[in-house]
Amino acid sequence: MAPAASTSSSACPSAPDLKGANAPLPADLPISSFLCEPNAYLSSNVEETHSGGHGGSLSRTNKNNVGIFHDESVKRQAYYDNSCIDGAHPANGHCEGSNSDDLLRRSNENQCIQTDLKPGLNLHSFQNGNDDAGTFILGRNMHHDCLSITEPDIDDESTGDKEAYMAGVLARYRRTLVDRTKYHLGYPYNLDFDYGALAQLQHFSINNLGDPFIESNYGVHSRQFEVGVLDWFARLWELEKDEYWGYITNCGTEGNLHGILVGREVFPDGILYASCESHYSVFKAARMYRMDVVKVATLVSGEIDCVDLKRKLEERKDKPAILNVNIGTTVKGAVDDLDLVITTLQEVGFTENQFFIHCDGALFGLMMPFVKKAPKVSFKKPIGSVSVSGHKFVGCPMPCGVQITRMEHINVLSRNVEYLASRDATIMGSRNGHAPLFLWYTLNRKGYRGFQKEVQRCLRNAHYLKSRLHDAGFGVMLNELSSTVVFERPQDEAFVRKWQLACQGDIAHAVVMPSVTTEKLDNFVEELIESRARCFEGGKVVVPCVASAIGEENCACSKHCAS
Amino acid sequence: MAPAASTSSSACPSAPDLKGANAPLPADLPISSFLCEPNAYLSSNVEETHSGGHGGSLSRTNKNNVGIFHDESVKRQAYYDNSCIDGAHPANGHCEGSNSDDLLRRSNENQCIQTDLKPGLNLHSFQNGNDDAGTFILGRNMHHDCLSITEPDIDDESTGDKEAYMAGVLARYRRTLVDRTKYHLGYPYNLDFDYGALAQLQHFSINNLGDPFIESNYGVHSRQFEVGVLDWFARLWELEKDEYWGYITNCGTEGNLHGILVGREVFPDGILYASCESHYSVFKAARMYRMDVVKVATLVSGEIDCVDLKRKLEERKDKPAILNVNIGTTVKGAVDDLDLVITTLQEVGFTENQFFIHCDGALFGLMMPFVKKAPKVSFKKPIGSVSVSGHKFVGCPMPCGVQITRMEHINVLSRNVEYLASRDATIMGSRNGHAPLFLWYTLNRKGYRGFQKEVQRCLRNAHYLKSRLHDAGFGVMLNELSSTVVFERPQDEAFVRKWQLACQGDIAHAVVMPSVTTEKLDNFVEELIESRARCFEGGKVVVPCVASAIGEENCACSKHCAS
Repeated sequence: MAPAASTSSSACPSAPDLKGANAPLPADLPISSFLCEPNAYLSSNVEETHSGGHGGSLSRTNKNNVGIFHDESVKRQAYYDNSCIDGAHPANGHCEGSNSDDLLRRSNENQCIQTDLKPGLNLHSFQNGNDDAGTFILGRNMHHDCLSITEPDIDDESTGDKEAYMAGVLARYRRTLVDRTKYHLGYPYNLDFDYGALAQLQHFSINNLGDPFIESNYGVHSRQFEVGVLDWFARLWELEKDEYWGYITNCGTEGNLHGILVGREVFPDGILYASCESHYSVFKAARMYRMDVVKVATLVSGEIDCVDLKRKLEERKDKPAILNVNIGTTVKGAVDDLDLVITTLQEVGFTENQFFIHCDGALFGLMMPFVKKAPKVSFKKPIGSVSVSGHKFVGCPMPCGVQITRMEHINVLSRNVEYLASRDATIMGSRNGHAPLFLWYTLNRKGYRGFQKEVQRCLRNAHYLKSRLHDAGFGVMLNELSSTVVFERPQDEAFVRKWQLACQGDIAHAVVMPSVTTEKLDNFVEELIESRARCFEGGKVVVPCVASAIGEENCACSKHCAS
Repeated sequence: MAPAASTSSSACPSAPDLKGANAPLPADLPISSFLCEPNAYLSSNVEETHSGGHGGSLSRTNKNNVGIFHDESVKRQAYYDNSCIDGAHPANGHCEGSNSDDLLRRSNENQCIQTDLKPGLNLHSFQNGNDDAGTFILGRNMHHDCLSITEPDIDDESTGDKEAYMAGVLARYRRTLVDRTKYHLGYPYNLDFDYGALAQLQHFSINNLGDPFIESNYGVHSRQFEVGVLDWFARLWELEKDEYWGYITNCGTEGNLHGILVGREVFPDGILYASCESHYSVFKAARMYRMDVVKVATLVSGEIDCVDLKRKLEERKDKPAILNVNIGTTVKGAVDDLDLVITTLQEVGFTENQFFIHCDGALFGLMMPFVKKAPKVSFKKPIGSVSVSGHKFVGCPMPCGVQITRMEHINVLSRNVEYLASRDATIMGSRNGHAPLFLWYTLNRKGYRGFQKEVQRCLRNAHYLKSRLHDAGFGVMLNELSSTVVFERPQDEAFVRKWQLACQGDIAHAVVMPSVTTEKLDNFVEELIESRARCFEGGKVVVPCVASAIGEENCACSKHCAS
């Protein structure tokens, strides 16, 4: 079930026996033939053994594969086969031919193919990417590996076969998760948490639908926890209780979508400015909201180039400015200089009622306050909103985030909502009520001091990783305020996949989170060195030049290293 | 912790002793004073007992309240007090004065106050509402009840106080959830599920970031399950594997946002048509996407009035039409007649390349296929997308949904994405990887047949409820294809809150889900009768006229009942 560490573009297996115990319904059998008319169900390929009772009760005859655990392997193979059941029919399925080629073709049609295609490598894209969905590997189509859903046999309840089968699938999946969790360096997710105390609540359908501050009639909610969390963050970013509004989002993207929407509502004809290393969701927002967007250049470090920003602002002085400021870019962990951005706006002549700043603090929004001398994200400055992810530094088993904005802006957002007699200020409607519990629990346990310690440890470990890579002759960069270590992209794709590294062009990065120990880093560096040696004949390593991506001073190629 | 069953607009308790064991940081202490400089932490109000060590280690002196469970009540009160710590400072907090009045005032300022304010009642809004965030009660500000996050004491780990305190909070919260889950009729959430088998996976940080069909480098995902679920739904709605694209969303709203966005990308100058009883997220989408929207009238049943639709289409023939078709409205459970909508489009002269239909099947999208004679939602008809909620009929502890559209439309959506070298076709970036597991598990266990049985039981029970209410002299309506029973709004707000009924104007509804038994319905009806009797002096009930909302034939007022 686990994706193999190698590139996968195998063609589908041949069509399986449709009568296998867990075979899905044949694809050419119209749904209508078994809906509402249960007795017509599975009229072909399957022999009816019994019918009657409310809702119909039918069974298929082939019981060859119906074992419990000892037949697991057979069943599992059947699953894989089933998932590609249409493979033998090129006209019917994602599974046709080589998916790699297929998807590539589609991608070409879409004119969004990346240019740095390397022979033997999958396509990577981490363009402008932040964490979320940042890295895609084209050519890996999940229909290969998908676990088809099969109709239960009528006697499943008595035999327990299906239950046992599913237990087997889940147990195997669990093993995969344990393994994948172990080797994980490329994404800024803190996997170090223990939420055992919350297990008792997992089976409740907790839903904070709508506004966090206004209770709905649905009683199974966790708003009392959510508002506690929001207060904590508002405090962190120095906004008074009666002056803020916010909510717990589903992910960093929702925070950006919200922040930029608020900005647009405040300035309907505003132009969106964002550095080209901003998260792609910022540009997605612009497209969704039909806003004009101006991409601003970045420095080698990855932070916004305020000289370029100034020039671009000057050209468009007549329109209000909505700015996305990165409190940590995804790829390089670069922090835009908020104070310099504000100064730049002022220099060009923008007054505070002519601009709106959204701070995308996906990862560093929570780390920065605990870093000495770091520029401060604070609502005492003229910013409009801040978002941060909850599943990153805090650590949470599900994606989530926190969005905080000024109450006055939410009032603007709500003012035109004629279709609702209440405040409708969230992007989503139904909202996950478990995420607030996880955040509340962690924040309470760790407190500001606990986070401070963790941030310090992460920064220390990031420096440790940088030193080790540098000593081993790798080109490597670490921004001052960051725990994201950027280095030459490993040439061995299996290694990249094993360690789940996010790559862009010639560079890769490792994000040192609280769950990353020096032991893990040692292990990583040693494997990286071995992997690199294997890529060169006789182990004679030629270090690539990555000066354009991380600066000459950080490059370890023969030219820059010598100079 | 549990919201009381009565309306809550009490003023804040007086300011508590700040030195209580779990008191939050004083609000007037700037964050900056304890960040990065741990020794400055809590410099006022608190006596420093120890300092030193990495990250600083400090404690507050007042230990009076530091007990384990026997001091729980004291602590809990402190929590409540703390949450309103700013209550004594009118300039500082949501807690100022009567929140009810306060929010009302804000609401007035926002010009979005509802008009049917009744003395002694909270404001309800369920305007155009679907499930999500449908009902708000203005006047209930969660800052009253919020559970503040407090900084741990330095000796918490050795004393176990905080751990014990939190365990107490969670245990109490769990009791509340049990209670609130028991009395729950107004929202279409199936609470009847057993996901014990999945508990072993709850602590993994599972994230299906980006596209379900294209694997990312982040290995801790559940795409193999997600695609299995999507296949199942595509099959249900009759779209071939190679012709569909879809993903598991965070909620019904995300499905609508996606479907309408796809429609707009296919027809950039298209006009959005939706009945006035459509979910508010449809109109939210129009606003977000800067689309022209036309509201279409509804029949008494709640379904779209195709005569009005025709008239409105004719007036705007020159522009493509993007239509939202409700497969079950929230309030009345009315199903728009998809076939009639398509015929209407054709009659006006719209060809298939001039319109896009999104089916909002939040609840009924999954029920309808199992209802005999129900009009069919199928991609064999010229529809563009279908969305359904996963936490409703299927039942899932977290909000989620499924969105299915045609591959060709996603290609249109992706074509212009220059900023990403891969397909970026989801609204969100990071995506909850647990939801697919829940759905996969349930669909596998129940199968089409299992759902069919449940749908039939729900419809039977809905008819049972309708009969019982009718026999008891209530005005009541039940649409043919629906399990949503609409009736006179109970006058007793405590009753409404206890049973978590969603209300709009003069009507309320109960949604009969698989978790609703006849025993529960009997219990409900008996309490409703008693509650009604109490509202009238001497128990002499005067049945209100609700003919305008549910039709004369369903009204039980003296005028319509007699006729």
